[in-house]
Amino acid sequence: MFAIAITLLIIEIGVPHVGEGGSLFKSLVHLWPSYLGYAISFLVIGTVWANHHNRFRLISRSDHILLFLNILFLMCVAFIPFPTALLAEYIREEAHRSTAVAVYSGTLAVTAVFFTLLWLYAAGNYRLVDRSLDPSLLRAMTRRYVLGMLLYVVAFALAFVSPAASLALVVILALIFVLPEPDGFGGARRTRRRSVGG
Amino acid sequence: MFAIAITLLIIEIGVPHVGEGGSLFKSLVHLWPSYLGYAISFLVIGTVWANHHNRFRLISRSDHILLFLNILFLMCVAFIPFPTALLAEYIREEAHRSTAVAVYSGTLAVTAVFFTLLWLYAAGNYRLVDRSLDPSLLRAMTRRYVLGMLLYVVAFALAFVSPAASLALVVILALIFVLPEPDGFGGARRTRRRSVGG
Amino acid sequence: MFAIAITLLIIEIGVPHVGEGGSLFKSLVHLWPSYLGYAISFLVIGTVWANHHNRFRLISRSDHILLFLNILFLMCVAFIPFPTALLAEYIREEAHRSTAVAVYSGTLAVTAVFFTLLWLYAAGNYRLVDRSLDPSLLRAMTRRYVLGMLLYVVAFALAFVSPAASLALVVILALIFVLPEPDGFGGARRTRRRSVGG
Amino acid sequence: MFAIAITLLIIEIGVPHVGEGGSLFKSLVHLWPSYLGYAISFLVIGTVWANHHNRFRLISRSDHILLFLNILFLMCVAFIPFPTALLAEYIREEAHRSTAVAVYSGTLAVTAVFFTLLWLYAAGNYRLVDRSLDPSLLRAMTRRYVLGMLLYVVAFALAFVSPAASLALVVILALIFVLPEPDGFGGARRTRRRSVGG
Repeated sequence: MFAIAITLLIIEIGVPHVGEGGSLFKSLVHLWPSYLGYAISFLVIGTVWANHHNRFRLISRSDHILLFLNILFLMCVAFIPFPTALLAEYIREEAHRSTAVAVYSGTLAVTAVFFTLLWLYAAGNYRLVDRSLDPSLLRAMTRRYVLGMLLYVVAFALAFVSPAASLALVVILALIFVLPEPDGFGGARRTRRRSVGG
Repeated sequence: MFAIAITLLIIEIGVPHVGEGGSLFKSLVHLWPSYLGYAISFLVIGTVWANHHNRFRLISRSDHILLFLNILFLMCVAFIPFPTALLAEYIREEAHRSTAVAVYSGTLAVTAVFFTLLWLYAAGNYRLVDRSLDPSLLRAMTRRYVLGMLLYVVAFALAFVSPAASLALVVILALIFVLPEPDGFGGARRTRRRSVGG
Repeated sequence: MFAIAITLLIIEIGVPHVGEGGSLFKSLVHLWPSYLGYAISFLVIGTVWANHHNRFRLISRSDHILLFLNILFLMCVAFIPFPTALLAEYIREEAHRSTAVAVYSGTLAVTAVFFTLLWLYAAGNYRLVDRSLDPSLLRAMTRRYVLGMLLYVVAFALAFVSPAASLALVVILALIFVLPEPDGFGGARRTRRRSVGG
Repeated sequence: MFAIAITLLIIEIGVPHVGEGGSLFKSLVHLWPSYLGYAISFLVIGTVWANHHNRFRLISRSDHILLFLNILFLMCVAFIPFPTALLAEYIREEAHRSTAVAVYSGTLAVTAVFFTLLWLYAAGNYRLVDRSLDPSLLRAMTRRYVLGMLLYVVAFALAFVSPAASLALVVILALIFVLPEPDGFGGARRTRRRSVGG
């Protein structure tokens, strides 16, 4: 499902129509917010995908609450192409910029909230995770996701003050979560590759 | 295929165009039927997906009638994005509301009919299911799906009386079918997770 | 890839726009060619999918000619949504009906040609198929696909005489190829189910 | 993800609208740049897919730099439907042809750059590839990809001199990379088939 959502992003970029005597090159340059939105969302979904994959490998049981939280989480991920298109359409317009960026970072914040709930539910009291996992490791992961979630909420709030700062924070967060995880966070280096291999 | 149909739902929501002096925020709020349709259809397809997956795990043989019924069933599932877009477009218009909701709940009713036929064909006389399954368990599943199907037909009929009640019933049905199944319905808790993991 | 092409079919059906005082119900009925095209193409792609899956299970080796023929074959399958949309748009217009149906059945004929070439190349002199297969079985399969291909070419030619007859032949062919294969054609009943399970 | 990107190509071809007294056949013939773009991009993505699959089979470890390079590479592949639609729209217009072809071959050149970087990073000093591989084999692969990358850059430059020559080179490169690889490049003949089987 991640693979489909990430590939659908390109559909939202329409071919520009060049008027009489116009320049295709200038029209393409004018579309820069679309490329920017595509690149950011691709990076964000790719990062969320890798994290979701790595954490679900530690979850050894399942129940209906986890199933339901996961559906809500995936509903957010599959929604991302819409605010991305919105961002591309309105980022250049002073009057609408804050709203467009707020919807975009707000969607990511809600996605992060459901991801964190999913993790808190599964890892709390070893409810659904592998019982052989180190408790300090689980606490480190929980800290990481709760902090990430809070920073996405900050990005949402920032949209009303400085849309540019909000987007910058979103990109920084994606880059941090794609960086090497602290030692021992899964030891999943071999199989992780497969999940993003294509 | 479920994963693709569920992710395609977002494509049907177009970015709003804001007129001179208009508010993007208001335009986005105005799109609420699209978000509602997205959320309901996502939940419905997700629930159908989990049920289809769980029941097919009990089917140990196959034949061409099952294959053909399954193609018809999947044809209905893949069709769902169309009535979802219809619902979003016309739910606000008094004159067209009943028709749009009837097409929507009618599509779900037809989908439920094919799912039930599939199950009745496979489970009747242990035709294609695992012969070691408890007969009272099979009867309980059959009751569950026949009852669900009848309630989807009721939702379809309700659309002509009260579109809101019809949609409410659709949501309730999806929530019921995502709830824990009665004990012993597959014991598939471990593998079920994978099918919705992404 | 079959799963994606088959699910994309629904995107080609746009939500109708109802004019002042118009009826949504009549507008939806007016879209019948779109539903017809959707159903036929879904059935055709589903059938091609099952046949492709069943025959590739007998192919135990591969080479670059097979790879190249397969790319051309898949290029045809992924193309089908376009002539389907064309068919839906123009089947009601007397002046364009023959052309639309000819493009549709012509696309299926070309797809059948590549499928047959793929099979003739793989099965000829046991080039790439399992050497333990019964020669009379291979000959029966070859006869089946060559005959099917010829009938798709007939459907293409019929489009210029009677578009309705051409479409009828296309549907009949899909139904024949979804019917039970002659005995011994793979004994793949158990695994075939998985490929269409969703 | 390759399967999705390759299947999405067809969505970019819209059904033509025929004016009063016009000919559907002529309108369809007029769309030839769309078919050409579809065929070239399908061939290119198919070839890139097979090469990516074959080389990743030799990579036995992974790290975060590889993961990040792979995300950038996949971002390019998923982008291809956009320049394909651009090419189809503007190849007939003298004034915009060079720009459209340059964006198209430029996208492929950037994709080739990331693929080559991916390979150089993984294969350099046996960083992430299987240590039992023959060093002269690795050098032959590196030569092959570096040369291919340089030729894609040449195709990009050619777009400003002769758009036709640029496209011709792109097609030739795809055909070369789909041809048999030199002996010993993986011995992956059996499994490679699966990756393009559908």
